[in-house]
Amino acid sequence: MTRRVIVDTDTAGDDTQAILLGALSGAVELELLTIVAGNVEFDYQVENAKYTLELAGVADEVPVYEGARRPLVKEFEHVDHVHGAGGLGGELFPDTGIESAEGYGPDAIVEAVRESPGELTLVCIGPLTNIALALRREPRLGELVEEVVVMGGAVNTLGNDTPSAEFNFWVDPDAAKVVMRELDVTLLDWGLTMRQATLESDELEPIEEAETPYADFFDEITAHLREFSEERFGSDATTQPDSLAMATVIEPDLVEEAPRYHVDVDEREGLTRGYSMVDELGITDGEARTRVVESIDEARFKTIFTDMLLHGDPDRSL
Amino acid sequence: MTRRVIVDTDTAGDDTQAILLGALSGAVELELLTIVAGNVEFDYQVENAKYTLELAGVADEVPVYEGARRPLVKEFEHVDHVHGAGGLGGELFPDTGIESAEGYGPDAIVEAVRESPGELTLVCIGPLTNIALALRREPRLGELVEEVVVMGGAVNTLGNDTPSAEFNFWVDPDAAKVVMRELDVTLLDWGLTMRQATLESDELEPIEEAETPYADFFDEITAHLREFSEERFGSDATTQPDSLAMATVIEPDLVEEAPRYHVDVDEREGLTRGYSMVDELGITDGEARTRVVESIDEARFKTIFTDMLLHGDPDRSL
Amino acid sequence: MTRRVIVDTDTAGDDTQAILLGALSGAVELELLTIVAGNVEFDYQVENAKYTLELAGVADEVPVYEGARRPLVKEFEHVDHVHGAGGLGGELFPDTGIESAEGYGPDAIVEAVRESPGELTLVCIGPLTNIALALRREPRLGELVEEVVVMGGAVNTLGNDTPSAEFNFWVDPDAAKVVMRELDVTLLDWGLTMRQATLESDELEPIEEAETPYADFFDEITAHLREFSEERFGSDATTQPDSLAMATVIEPDLVEEAPRYHVDVDEREGLTRGYSMVDELGITDGEARTRVVESIDEARFKTIFTDMLLHGDPDRSL
Amino acid sequence: MTRRVIVDTDTAGDDTQAILLGALSGAVELELLTIVAGNVEFDYQVENAKYTLELAGVADEVPVYEGARRPLVKEFEHVDHVHGAGGLGGELFPDTGIESAEGYGPDAIVEAVRESPGELTLVCIGPLTNIALALRREPRLGELVEEVVVMGGAVNTLGNDTPSAEFNFWVDPDAAKVVMRELDVTLLDWGLTMRQATLESDELEPIEEAETPYADFFDEITAHLREFSEERFGSDATTQPDSLAMATVIEPDLVEEAPRYHVDVDEREGLTRGYSMVDELGITDGEARTRVVESIDEARFKTIFTDMLLHGDPDRSL
Ligand SMILES: [Ca+2]
Ligand SMILES: [Ca+2]
Ligand SMILES: [Ca+2]
Ligand SMILES: [Ca+2]
Repeated sequence: MTRRVIVDTDTAGDDTQAILLGALSGAVELELLTIVAGNVEFDYQVENAKYTLELAGVADEVPVYEGARRPLVKEFEHVDHVHGAGGLGGELFPDTGIESAEGYGPDAIVEAVRESPGELTLVCIGPLTNIALALRREPRLGELVEEVVVMGGAVNTLGNDTPSAEFNFWVDPDAAKVVMRELDVTLLDWGLTMRQATLESDELEPIEEAETPYADFFDEITAHLREFSEERFGSDATTQPDSLAMATVIEPDLVEEAPRYHVDVDEREGLTRGYSMVDELGITDGEARTRVVESIDEARFKTIFTDMLLHGDPDRSL
Repeated sequence: MTRRVIVDTDTAGDDTQAILLGALSGAVELELLTIVAGNVEFDYQVENAKYTLELAGVADEVPVYEGARRPLVKEFEHVDHVHGAGGLGGELFPDTGIESAEGYGPDAIVEAVRESPGELTLVCIGPLTNIALALRREPRLGELVEEVVVMGGAVNTLGNDTPSAEFNFWVDPDAAKVVMRELDVTLLDWGLTMRQATLESDELEPIEEAETPYADFFDEITAHLREFSEERFGSDATTQPDSLAMATVIEPDLVEEAPRYHVDVDEREGLTRGYSMVDELGITDGEARTRVVESIDEARFKTIFTDMLLHGDPDRSL
Repeated sequence: MTRRVIVDTDTAGDDTQAILLGALSGAVELELLTIVAGNVEFDYQVENAKYTLELAGVADEVPVYEGARRPLVKEFEHVDHVHGAGGLGGELFPDTGIESAEGYGPDAIVEAVRESPGELTLVCIGPLTNIALALRREPRLGELVEEVVVMGGAVNTLGNDTPSAEFNFWVDPDAAKVVMRELDVTLLDWGLTMRQATLESDELEPIEEAETPYADFFDEITAHLREFSEERFGSDATTQPDSLAMATVIEPDLVEEAPRYHVDVDEREGLTRGYSMVDELGITDGEARTRVVESIDEARFKTIFTDMLLHGDPDRSL
Repeated sequence: MTRRVIVDTDTAGDDTQAILLGALSGAVELELLTIVAGNVEFDYQVENAKYTLELAGVADEVPVYEGARRPLVKEFEHVDHVHGAGGLGGELFPDTGIESAEGYGPDAIVEAVRESPGELTLVCIGPLTNIALALRREPRLGELVEEVVVMGGAVNTLGNDTPSAEFNFWVDPDAAKVVMRELDVTLLDWGLTMRQATLESDELEPIEEAETPYADFFDEITAHLREFSEERFGSDATTQPDSLAMATVIEPDLVEEAPRYHVDVDEREGLTRGYSMVDELGITDGEARTRVVESIDEARFKTIFTDMLLHGDPDRSL
């Protein structure tokens, strides 16, 4: 059975690979993309998304809606230093000529789920502004979707944007708080990525050597990021948080452990902006409604990912 | 020249009088109303607004759009204890049978101002959730409106909801922060109301004695509030913050002093949630963009208000 | 009956006048001074205090103890731009050669009140660090003193350091919070000073013309401050918050209205650091334990103050 | 060479074992103990400390000073539910009849380090109130001590008091912030304890079987805690955070990895009160002054600990 998916993305870096996975897998049908303020300048993100869809040959079928151009409440800064200016490594600045779909991202989400209640899965791989806005427009959003998969937070571990926060939650902590409070979410955090969704140098070699368009695209967009990671994290391994999120939608069996915990987000400015409080021991009296993915089948995920890059077919070994 | 006005309201208490003023004055043309979470239960507010329009005989012409049913981020509680259950004094629970307009409040605002750029004035007499949501949808909102008039905040004075905050700013401090940061606002605060927009017992007598439908309506909705005020503020004077906001749109010359100051809002939970920081001395380096109304022609305002109640014609003495 | 007084001071500007009042009035016996981090560099403050005692001829009798050199928790900056470098107008940098008393300010306070339980009054005219430290050493401090008089806070009015805070509370908001929570305080805030303890140009003329040492000292230390006030507040009137605090100890009948309210302080960094929440309407459930002075006998205060400067005798007209 | 040690402790549970280690090891000479508000009621803690010293036969030589009876600024609650009423498991309420030393804990620390500059090591195994108070009294504290060893914080891992905070930092986050900002600290956090300083059921067996007074004491005080841990953490293993801190003073070579990082503490009330921000990647511009112990020689630590309990001699295998 094909899962119908909406991707909400601040398209740069690994967002593109997640989109490719969704576009190329037979297990998923991309309904639409919504763009949200995040990684790099908004208009670059829109182009990056369109370019990626074009690369996968689905630009005609998957409309791209522009959403919130800034977080709900807080100010923020782009991270061009991570993904390179433009968000695709620093050399690639697509100009596809494809028109954005008419309408506002959060509306598009609301209308789609109203039309197909219980059938759509939201894969959220950027700051959660669009989703929070959709919630204000449609308080019953949670009942109308099949599943909400979020890449975000740093579950009782070091963050990647500040020591206390992961980037998506840091950019719009208010939206993250709203979403975690009001929706049943499957959460894949930065810690999971660090443990199980990084590709080490040796794992990257086959991709570097391959000459498929997807592998070339991957090499291009990761070049800058790998340098940055080398510097910040002391390793040129690549991290694939967004791809992992999409992969668990393609193949739910990837998820091995995912207990439900109470999750809250610190939305205040200061030391802990965007901190994800995950109550693993049930100490607080908050409701344990978030499914926190703690471990996945790492080998299988990497097979899916590599099959996509080397063969254009993430489902190849499924 | 008639000013075209959108009223954003959590209709209860004085919101009704502001709507009546707008509906009955020839200086103002009500384009539409949007309802926002605030004073009392959302659905009551919607009915209260429709009932008020009906009373003024304009229910056919002025569509009522339902907007945000909760604040951007924070939780809040209604203040039934202030306005009586239902928001109209506790005895009156209208059920007009009028349909709400199709569409979402914040969208209605955006579409209206896009259609008539520079021609519409927003009169905001509730929490600012709808306006903040409109800003996320249309970042150029400020350029598209003629003026944004806000009743809110407590300018370096005691608040009415907590000691540090006025109700509208307290309910949705995030929205208030966003609006004060991103729009040029004419602000009428709770302090101004306390100084110049309260009707004392003797001023209320003619209204109590009058038997016009507007005066009767006023008596009904203020009965509970006057008791509450007697208890909390030690006086049964009524306060007309929202009416004053609308009156300054009907007659801009009511405004006597309105310097521009930098205004910020504390959106954090805790002691100062909803606190309005107004930099009267220019100590901070924030931009002085908010026009803070410090004094009005009180006698004239009261004439307008009383003319409306006693003669159904706020313009009578203009 | 003479009241025995401890003055806790960040000696600069009006602190000196308060000390003079205490030293020259027969109604008060200065037991000791403690110096706290505040207005200007700590060592200047110590010298300023000693110089002032010397000027009043009591340097031999009143020991000066050095207290906390920084706030309990927060970082802060001096306000040399207000009081002039050094804190006495910018030209005067005393070097008295007088030794500080052996011991730590907060200890000196604790030991003094333990020796004379119920007999000493604390007049606190600087940030409240020393008092909070004394409280941690002696939890029964409140039972051991006769009265605690604090100059601090901005009661539902504009602050003088930031729009939301008065200087003493801003510098050490944690200490202010602790003191307001744990002691019964008589509070004289910045708003009271603005309303009733400012000397206008015409009131200052006799002082300027007088050639007594006290008047000359006053002229010197206020010269810079008056320029600063002219610039910031648009008036070269002088403000005498600390003198007023001491005057109410000399002559308690100066106080006309002083209801008890619940007072809390925002100790958080940010927009409202040092904000004094004063619950004038009893809305919160906090205990109404702080005696907030709302009005004084202004003429009489000014007589006391002027008598001190012109005749060296604050009690002259009492 | 013997290290001279001051122990600052909220004596309950493992604090007692740390004191025993210090008292029984020839590598350490206990100079004095200071008691600080924390685990259980203050007066119980004082008695617990004296009882422990008596058990080790050093009650005559090691004075116990009473320090701060509450945190610098925040309110807090005891954790009788963790350590049992009284803090020694719930059955044992010592009443030693030993007098506390004259003087205030923070003063005793200041006086001791002033007398022997550079010679004393502070082993801080409670909330850091006393240390922060000592810092306010003696700003040069850091220069006067040999080393400051702190058990506290949860370094990018789940806390034990709330999900975001370890108990000592949670109780007095302001003091923790002050200490981390103003002193060079060797920090042993809760995460290290969880990884390397827990004794599992099988490791506890020999202790349970032994009938030495120390082993009996250990069994008694851990009985309640093990039940509590079983419930909260799903394991009846005991945790020895304080013992580990003291063990690293007895045998510094226990420490295997201890890089220096910038550490800050969130002192705000709310979700992240007491959160320890540890900048492992050097992302912030804070100074990397805290030596964060990341790994120790676990086997050796356990040998020291067991030797103490079974043979009364922690140095037995050194
Ligand atoms: Ca992303
Ligand atoms: Ca309203
Ligand atoms: Ca002062
Ligand atoms: Ca402890």
